[in-house]
Formats: sequence, C-alpha cells, structure tokens
Amino acid sequence: MIISPDGEFGQGGQMLRRIAVLTSGGDSPGMNACIRAVSRAAAHNGLECLGAVGGFSGLVKGEFVPLPPRSVSNIIQRGGTILKAGRCPEFLQKRARASAARNLSRMGIGGLVAIGGDGTFRGVHALCREHGVQAVSVPGTIDNDIPFTDSIGFDTAVNTAMQSIDKIKDTSISHGLPFFVEVMGRRSGAIALESAIASGAEAALLPEVLHDMKDVCRTIREGRAAGKASLIVVVAEGDETGGARRAGEVAKLATGIDYRVCVLGHTQRGGSPTVRDRVLATRLGCRAVEELMRGTKDSMAGEENGVATLVPLARILRKRKEVRIDDLGLLRTMSE
Amino acid sequence: MIISPDGEFGQGGQMLRRIAVLTSGGDSPGMNACIRAVSRAAAHNGLECLGAVGGFSGLVKGEFVPLPPRSVSNIIQRGGTILKAGRCPEFLQKRARASAARNLSRMGIGGLVAIGGDGTFRGVHALCREHGVQAVSVPGTIDNDIPFTDSIGFDTAVNTAMQSIDKIKDTSISHGLPFFVEVMGRRSGAIALESAIASGAEAALLPEVLHDMKDVCRTIREGRAAGKASLIVVVAEGDETGGARRAGEVAKLATGIDYRVCVLGHTQRGGSPTVRDRVLATRLGCRAVEELMRGTKDSMAGEENGVATLVPLARILRKRKEVRIDDLGLLRTMSE
Amino acid sequence: MIISPDGEFGQGGQMLRRIAVLTSGGDSPGMNACIRAVSRAAAHNGLECLGAVGGFSGLVKGEFVPLPPRSVSNIIQRGGTILKAGRCPEFLQKRARASAARNLSRMGIGGLVAIGGDGTFRGVHALCREHGVQAVSVPGTIDNDIPFTDSIGFDTAVNTAMQSIDKIKDTSISHGLPFFVEVMGRRSGAIALESAIASGAEAALLPEVLHDMKDVCRTIREGRAAGKASLIVVVAEGDETGGARRAGEVAKLATGIDYRVCVLGHTQRGGSPTVRDRVLATRLGCRAVEELMRGTKDSMAGEENGVATLVPLARILRKRKEVRIDDLGLLRTMSE
Amino acid sequence: MIISPDGEFGQGGQMLRRIAVLTSGGDSPGMNACIRAVSRAAAHNGLECLGAVGGFSGLVKGEFVPLPPRSVSNIIQRGGTILKAGRCPEFLQKRARASAARNLSRMGIGGLVAIGGDGTFRGVHALCREHGVQAVSVPGTIDNDIPFTDSIGFDTAVNTAMQSIDKIKDTSISHGLPFFVEVMGRRSGAIALESAIASGAEAALLPEVLHDMKDVCRTIREGRAAGKASLIVVVAEGDETGGARRAGEVAKLATGIDYRVCVLGHTQRGGSPTVRDRVLATRLGCRAVEELMRGTKDSMAGEENGVATLVPLARILRKRKEVRIDDLGLLRTMSE
Repeated sequence: MIISPDGEFGQGGQMLRRIAVLTSGGDSPGMNACIRAVSRAAAHNGLECLGAVGGFSGLVKGEFVPLPPRSVSNIIQRGGTILKAGRCPEFLQKRARASAARNLSRMGIGGLVAIGGDGTFRGVHALCREHGVQAVSVPGTIDNDIPFTDSIGFDTAVNTAMQSIDKIKDTSISHGLPFFVEVMGRRSGAIALESAIASGAEAALLPEVLHDMKDVCRTIREGRAAGKASLIVVVAEGDETGGARRAGEVAKLATGIDYRVCVLGHTQRGGSPTVRDRVLATRLGCRAVEELMRGTKDSMAGEENGVATLVPLARILRKRKEVRIDDLGLLRTMSE
Repeated sequence: MIISPDGEFGQGGQMLRRIAVLTSGGDSPGMNACIRAVSRAAAHNGLECLGAVGGFSGLVKGEFVPLPPRSVSNIIQRGGTILKAGRCPEFLQKRARASAARNLSRMGIGGLVAIGGDGTFRGVHALCREHGVQAVSVPGTIDNDIPFTDSIGFDTAVNTAMQSIDKIKDTSISHGLPFFVEVMGRRSGAIALESAIASGAEAALLPEVLHDMKDVCRTIREGRAAGKASLIVVVAEGDETGGARRAGEVAKLATGIDYRVCVLGHTQRGGSPTVRDRVLATRLGCRAVEELMRGTKDSMAGEENGVATLVPLARILRKRKEVRIDDLGLLRTMSE
Repeated sequence: MIISPDGEFGQGGQMLRRIAVLTSGGDSPGMNACIRAVSRAAAHNGLECLGAVGGFSGLVKGEFVPLPPRSVSNIIQRGGTILKAGRCPEFLQKRARASAARNLSRMGIGGLVAIGGDGTFRGVHALCREHGVQAVSVPGTIDNDIPFTDSIGFDTAVNTAMQSIDKIKDTSISHGLPFFVEVMGRRSGAIALESAIASGAEAALLPEVLHDMKDVCRTIREGRAAGKASLIVVVAEGDETGGARRAGEVAKLATGIDYRVCVLGHTQRGGSPTVRDRVLATRLGCRAVEELMRGTKDSMAGEENGVATLVPLARILRKRKEVRIDDLGLLRTMSE
Repeated sequence: MIISPDGEFGQGGQMLRRIAVLTSGGDSPGMNACIRAVSRAAAHNGLECLGAVGGFSGLVKGEFVPLPPRSVSNIIQRGGTILKAGRCPEFLQKRARASAARNLSRMGIGGLVAIGGDGTFRGVHALCREHGVQAVSVPGTIDNDIPFTDSIGFDTAVNTAMQSIDKIKDTSISHGLPFFVEVMGRRSGAIALESAIASGAEAALLPEVLHDMKDVCRTIREGRAAGKASLIVVVAEGDETGGARRAGEVAKLATGIDYRVCVLGHTQRGGSPTVRDRVLATRLGCRAVEELMRGTKDSMAGEENGVATLVPLARILRKRKEVRIDDLGLLRTMSE
C-alpha cells in the first residue's frame, strides 16, 4: 500500500514529510481517538501519516497502512485500536529493533508516535538511543501508572469498573452478602481505589499498600452489625492478598460470613471512551505531532493536572506514578 | 409497623382487604418495578399492601412493612429489590410453612403475590396446598427458564451480558485473541444463546445441548485462518464442559491457540431494568392483584409472546422453558 | 467495484446467484445487524451479496458495493447504516423505478432485500408489481407501526427514550417541576406509551387517542397535591395537542403550575442496538435470504410475538399496527 | 424531627456539635454523593448532621431533616438531590436571610455546607457577612463556571451530552445531513467545547467567543464537498447566535444545505454521576466538614487540577472560570 520511500531520516523537523503511529501493549479506550488525532494533525501540518500494524511487530516486519485524514473518520468513539496492539517479545532483541529502524528509514518515515504503557516506552526508548529514531510517546494504559501524566484509557476503565460495581451492589443489598470485586491493576491500585470511592465500597486492597486483612474483616463484621445496606471490597488483581477470591476466603475463615466474588476482567479494557479520555487522546495526539515537527526526541507528551508535560523517556522509566494514598483514609471515613 | 389484624383469611376475593408481596430467590432487575405495580394496583382496588421482608423468611418470622402507593415512588428504575430477597432453606420444612400461614392469617393478609423463580414457586405451591393460602406468583428470574411466560429480569441481564461482550470484543479484535466468556445460567442457556447472537459471537455452549468441543475448536481454527476480526465463545455457567475456563483450556490443547477468559458473574443480576422488564413487571404485578381480587389460587400470572397467561403452578413445576434451539443454527450461519 | 453482470433475473430461487440489500427511510438501530445477516446468510447459501448505496437512490443510479461476509465484521453493534439511508422522492415516479429495475437486471441481481418502514415498503411493492423484481422486505423503523411484526429499532429507541426520561426525572424530583417530554412518533404512540409506563410517567399523549387535556391537568394538580415525587407527561410528536410545548402551555394556563419541556428528538434514532433489536435483525435478515432462495415475492419477513411471519406487502400496506391501548389504563392505575 | 436546640453558634470549630447541608440552584449529578460525604464526615468527627430541605427555602422556613450516616446509604450513584434544590428568589431579601440565620441559631447549627453554583454562593456570602454564619461552600453546577475549582456535575453532564451526540452522529452519517446540537450553558461554553471535541464535531459555538457564522458555513460546505462522514455543530444555549435553531437557519440560508436540530435540554442535568464527579463530591464534602471544624468561614472548598483549593467567596464572586480557548483551535485542526 505504500509507495516508494522518500524523505530523509533523523534530520529533525525541517525535513519531516512522513510519520508513523503505532499502538502497543494492552489496548486502552481512547487509542483510536489518539490515532485519529495524529492522522489529522499530520495532515494539518502537511505531513503524510502511516500506521504500523500490530505495534512494534509492524515496525519489525515493515507492515504499514496509509492513514489519511478521512480514513480515521468515525473512530473517535470506538474502543480498541484499529491498528491492533499486542506485546512483541521479539522487540526485546537488538536485531528486531535494528530491523524496525531499517524499515522506518526505508519507508522515509522521519518521526514516530508510539501510544502505550511503560513496556511500550521501554521499546521506544531503546529504538531512539540505538538508532536515533525520532519518536514521541503518548501514555495509553488503563493502569494510569505512568508518572508526570494522566493516561488515556484510565477514566473509561474506572467508570466501567464503577458501573459494574453499581450493579453488583444491587445484589449485595438485596441479599445482604459481602462481595469481593477484583479489578485490573497488576502493579497499580489506581482503578481499585477510585472505583471503590466512587461506588461507595467499604474497602480497597491495593498493591501499593500492605493491608492488614484484620482491618477488612473488622469492616465486614462491623458493617454487618451496623446493618449496612451493602458490603463491597474492591481488590486490585495485583494486591499481595492474591486477588478477590483469596481475600474473600481469608475473610470468611476469620468472620464466618459468606461472600461472593466477581472478577471484572477484560470488560475494563474496551468500550466507548469517556469525554476525558477522548479529549486527552486528541490533545496528546495532536501535541505529539507538533513535537515531532519541533524536533523533539525520545520524550513523552503528557498532561498532568490539566497542564501539558513533556518529559524525556529516560526520566519516566525510572519512576512510577503514585496513587493518592490519602484517598484510602477518605474511603475509610466514608464507610464508617 | 403493622396495626391490629383484621379481615378474614382464605375467603376468596370478596373479603380481600389486605395483601402482601414478597421477592424470593436470586434478585432480578425489575423486581422493584413489580413491587411498585402491586402496591399501586392494590391501592387502586382499595386494598392495603404489605411487603414481607427477605422473601419467605419474612413470612416465617412475621416481618412485614407497609407499602402504601407513595412508598414505592422512584423505584421503578432501580435494580435489586427493596424488600430484599434470598433463599430460605428453612421453608422446605412443613413447620416453617405452617408458621408463615399463621402469620399471614394473624396479619389479616388475604392474598399473597410472590415474585421469583422456580424455587420460589415450589415454596408458594406448598403453602397454597397445605394451608389454603391464596397466592398468585409472578416470574422474576434472569434465567428465563419458567415455562408459559417471559421472566422479569431476563431482558436486562442479557443486555448487560451483551454490553460486556461488546467491550471484550474490542480487545479481542485489537489483540487477535479468542475469548471464552462465561454468562449466568446453571440449567438454562437462554442468556448465553441470545447474548452470543447479539454480540456476533462465534459459538455458544449451552446446558441444553451436548456440544462437541471439536466443533468449537474448528470454529476457532477456521476463524483465525479466515482472519476473523474477533473470536468469542459464550459459555453458560452450567454447560457440561464445566464453564469458560475449562472450555478455553480444552480448546487450547487442541488448537494450540492462546485464549482469555472472562466470567461476567453477578454484574448480570443488577442494574437499572430495560423497558421490556419494567413494562412486563408492571403488567404482571398489576394482573397478579386483579387475579387475587378474582379469587385465583395457586397460579402464575405470566406473559408469553405478548399474550397474558395464567397457569396453575402445578403445571409449571412439571416443565421447563426451552431455548429457541434453532437459533444455534442461526449463530453458526452468522459466524461463518 | 462490480464486475460484469451475470445470472438471470426473476427466475425464482434456482437461478439466484446474486442479491442486493438496501436500507431506506429514516435509519433505525439494528439496520447494520440486518445488513450483516443478509451478507452472511447469502454467503452461507452460496450467493453473492451487494449493497445498494443510499436506499432506492442506489438502485436508480446503479450504485452498488460488494458485501462479502468479512466486510460486515464488527458492525452488529453500531447504530445507523453503513449503506446509508434516506428518502428518495424520485422513486415515486415510474421512470425512476424502471431505471432501478434495469440496473438490477444489468447487474444480475436476482433478489432484493429492502429494510425500512412503510414508505420503503410502498416503493418496493411498486417495483415488484411493475417490474417483477423479486424482493423480500424487512421491517426496520423505530416507530413500530408495521402490522404483523415487531420492527427492528423500536426496542432500542424506546430504551433510549426511557433512559433520557430517567435522567429528567432526577431533576423533576429535585425541583418539584412537571416535565413534558416529547418523543418520536408522528402517527404512532408506541414509543410514548411504552417509555411512559417504563419510566413511571404520569400520562402519555398518543396520536391514536383523542386526549382530554382536562385529564392531564387534573393528574398534574392531584399529583402535586399528593406530593408526588415527580410529574412527567410523555407526548408523542404527532399527538393532536401539537407536541410537548403546546401541551405544557395548555396545562399551565389551566393549572397555573410552571413546567419544563424536553424534546428528545434524533437521539432516539441512533445508538448501539439492544439485544432484542440485534437478534430480531439477525433472524429477519437471514430469513429474508432464505425466502428469496425459496422464490418468495413481494412480501415481508417479520416476527410477531416470537413467531415468524411472512405477509404479502399488499396486505401490510392496507393496515397499521395498533398500540396496546389497554396499557393506557395500566399507566393511569400506576400513576395514582 | 429535630429535638431541642443545643450548642452555640458562631464559636468556631471548638464548640461545633451540629451542622447542616443544603443543595441549591439547578441540580447537578453528584450532589447526593456530596450530601453523603458531609453526613459521613460529620459522623466521623462526632458532629450531628442535618439537611435543609429545598435549599435556602429550607433555611428560611426552618425545614430540616436529620441526616445520620445510615440515612445516606445507597445514594452515591443517584442523580438529583435527596434534599431537593431550586432557586429561592426570596433569599435576595435581607429579611429572609435574617430568618435563615435565626433558624440556624435556634437549631443549634454551628456550621453550614452549601452545595451549588454562583447564585448559591452569592446567597451564602450575604448570610455569612450579615449574620456571621459559619459556612463552607462546595461547587456543584454542570456549567463548570466557578473559578479556582472543577465543579461537581460537569463531568457527568458533558459525558451525557457526548453520548447523545454519538447517537445523533449515527443518523448524520446515515443521512448525510448536518446537525446543530444545542447543549446547556447560558454563560459558559464548557459543555459545548468539550463535548464537541469528544464527539468529533466540526464546530462549537460558545458564549465566550464571537463567532463568525461565515466560518461555520464554510466548514459545512467544505465538509460536504470533502465527503465528510458526518457534520455536527455543537451550540451552547447562551451563544450569541441565539441557539441551535437560529444557527442552523442562518447556515441554511447561506449554504442552501438542509439541516436538523436537536436540543439536549434537561437530560444533561440528571443521571448517575461519573467516577470523577462522585470522587470529587466525596472529597469536597469531606473537606468542607473539616474546614468547618477548623473554623474556616465564608469560603469555598474546591479542587482544581487535582489540587485542593480553599478560596474566600468574595474572591470567587469577582471572577468567572474561563474555558480552554486553545481547544477551539484543536477542534478546527481535527475537523479538517
């Protein structure tokens, strides 16, 4: 689908004629909105835009599709990614990255926008350092664990989680049974914490905090004694208790109170993105292109607390975003 | 909360002054709409309406709350049941049922509306036969397994399941991975079948049908070979394969293709009911009261294919509603 | 996009090699699901499937696109129609229909599936009678006014209306203000009636019934006096009062009670279809193809009360589907 | 419902034993979540919490209800306000405010939390200055026009608007017709701007900006010429063009292109709040109570860009929050 390579590689903004965009890692709602923004901003700036198919694997194999502005019509509202995503273990090897750089050069692609999480950023960083590829990354992950920025997809994921917990609460109230609800987050408790506060849950178990299951058991016991309408414990999948099933079992052993478990799973990844995620994706996609024009290298275009950020990947990869730990206290106050 | 008993028991419609309503078994969306309809129809007909708290257990313990028409304002749109539900194993014993009949009599409750599934119907049937209690039952179960009627809650549950599968499909497409999605239905494949057709799934595994996992494996293999955008297998929890996890594992062993599992669980029970469930609940709740007025006993007020039905419980308990098995063929044609 | 014409026209099923599908009139949610079903069922039966672009206008101008089974992937959940719809006043003229027949013949299209409402059916009927085109129609209209069948899109539209009224009710309760909500339905009160019952509205004004605004005024006055939590009157756009704004004004003049108006408008046409609409669309699309194979002509493939129907268009065009008028009584009982 | 007055008034935090909360002005989603937070935080801090019924009018008439922590169970997810809201023109008069202060004093209410928009703030500010009432205000308005803070309800309202526009877009695409969609915002274009970006609209007309309708007409003309899938113009109700209907008419006169109008109206006020609004409401409600304990007076507890703010009302009433005007440029780039 792609015509003869032209343009020159690694010359900074002045020679930029063609860019590529890719989505990588787990998909997150808003990736399509971001692809659309990159395509449209590219056209606005007189650049041609291609999409690498299937994340890094598209770079390695040289699989690109043209992304003119009309090709991204009517995708802003769709979950998933039209470019496909996925992990590419092969990209951990130097050889694969060399092949990717070669393909970019051969295609005349002078700039790359990579949308994904920290695994993606690691790959892009290596590509930049080793081959001088000009790339700007954009944070797209439901885990919201990238520092110095909000991540595209988190707002949608946490709303999906909350809506599911709202439903579960109906049954918890009707039957007087505690529920242990497992949400996504291997290393991050962001979804667990916010969805717990928002759904009026009694407790949240996060990977970032060593929990005392005694506290949870007391909450359940006292909640039941106080005639609380519902009893919900939200558990991040990566919590050290081992997930909702284990936590529920431990609590039952200690309290004798029966429980139910619900693992929300992949429902949290998909779905039509919220306003917040679509607007963020649009802003960051547009800004990534502008940064490429400006010659920016090896950095992430983000937005934290409403303020645009631009941070070298190297700095991002040394840190993790922290959850608002004082919200745990808020949760406790609210569930008394 | 209840004043002195008056009225007379078991005298047919002419003496009816006070009725009670209860919800029992697993909760289903629309139960509140039905409680509201019973309360309002009672008032319209000059009857007083009480609610038994917690299903049969409320009858046994004599726990009732008044349900005047204004007390059920603004609940038509809410999932769960304001009267609480739940199984009551105690009610399997004659003694408990005798106690329930005594309480009804003592409270001057001349008619009972029981909303629930076949477990509920069994309990009510025994109560009617043994103690001459005048009761009309209403089908409220997400499983849609009561014969001669649609059940309140099914339409909402299957829409919830479909919306979740829609989300999962985004990820299935983005990553090219098959998903095995488990939906509710221990003995009934109704949710699985309809949500599979509606979400464009590749296959549905139902308790009613002995499946050949070879077919499922072939579907996955061919689907992938044909470059199908997504691959979804919907599994009813009661299917003989043992659920989504097992089915996925079997398929992987045979095809070598990795997969993901998602168990939708209790999210399917709650949530704001659909139009269909609210309208059905309103019609049936209203009709149950009219049947009590008319002296009807030991029967279910239902609606099948848009037509009002009134069926003796004894007849219902001998049968099970069947799924539209020819829809399985439709599913196959669509997924080719 | 279409290669040389082949096949023969009007020879019944045995010679059928290529069919076309079109959507016409106002769009309705589920049209895409039906297009998909036609395409897939065609492939299953060894037929080639084309789509006429923009309804009848595509026939007249000979604008067709190929619709192989993979081209309809991932559209089952989308509102609108990928084939575009729209009225085609030109088609009222014989000349345009002759041109359409010629194009069908030239393209070797032996059978036509037309999805739409009664305007669409009228056009198809003329085409069948005048030119012997073999066509099976499918009911797709949010108005649900086609006799002998449920219509694709109604269930979604009425759920959308109800969800909007649920939101409006929050404000009605918070502010103690009556709301007059206008829903779609020029000649049919189906959306108004069902959304009113489902949202717990106080009254519904339908084109099918001559309303006494005095009743509405009394309902508002008494409702307020009784301290009703919310006061909602649902008005079909085609009601003889002239819509929600007029009805509200009349009521205010009579009662002195201020009110608010909300016109739901085109939000009711779009959106992801419900289970009911997707399943219905899938069944009917599939059946339309089977009927073409069987040689059926000038008929509608429908489903009423769960039962498949096949009715000559001539018979359908003489009748209108009626609303369940006794549900008006139900609404009154419920709002006391 | 309230027992004898005790406690002392206006003594700062140390004597605080009883507080009251009210919601005023237009309702916004999340007000209930905030009421809950105030009630629970009060209990946590050993305070008794009352609710004034119907906003300022409850203060003036001395209508209060007790709000113990269990009374606010299961309201976090509900739109509207259990305390009722509404404007109270009477409160513009000194006499009414004196009466309010007297009632607060008589009831022993030492602190007041007022949730609402700038009209509410004006009333509270007068009450504080004239009578030394200790009050902390919380921003609750869908318009998001309070400076130094995000407002509870905006995120939900803008998501509701976007979801409606998504639906309208289906029809716009299917029929090739431009839509002028009117959203709320008399003096603020916040909903219009964000919902336009998020739904991929072509233009947004805001009260803050003097628009050249020539630009809008050019966008429509060029969009149609370029074969754009849909054409959506979002119009804030307070835009100087006079709303969607006028804007559409003007555009049609200039371009000759037919159009449709949809006025989203009060659907934007209600509905279950988003995560963002529930979390914000919970944080601010809790903080308002803490500020009362601390002796804070005549101020607003807000959160801007993730950072807690505490601003004297006097300062807030002199300013208005501005929309991110550069997002208009983003919108233009995206719609090319």
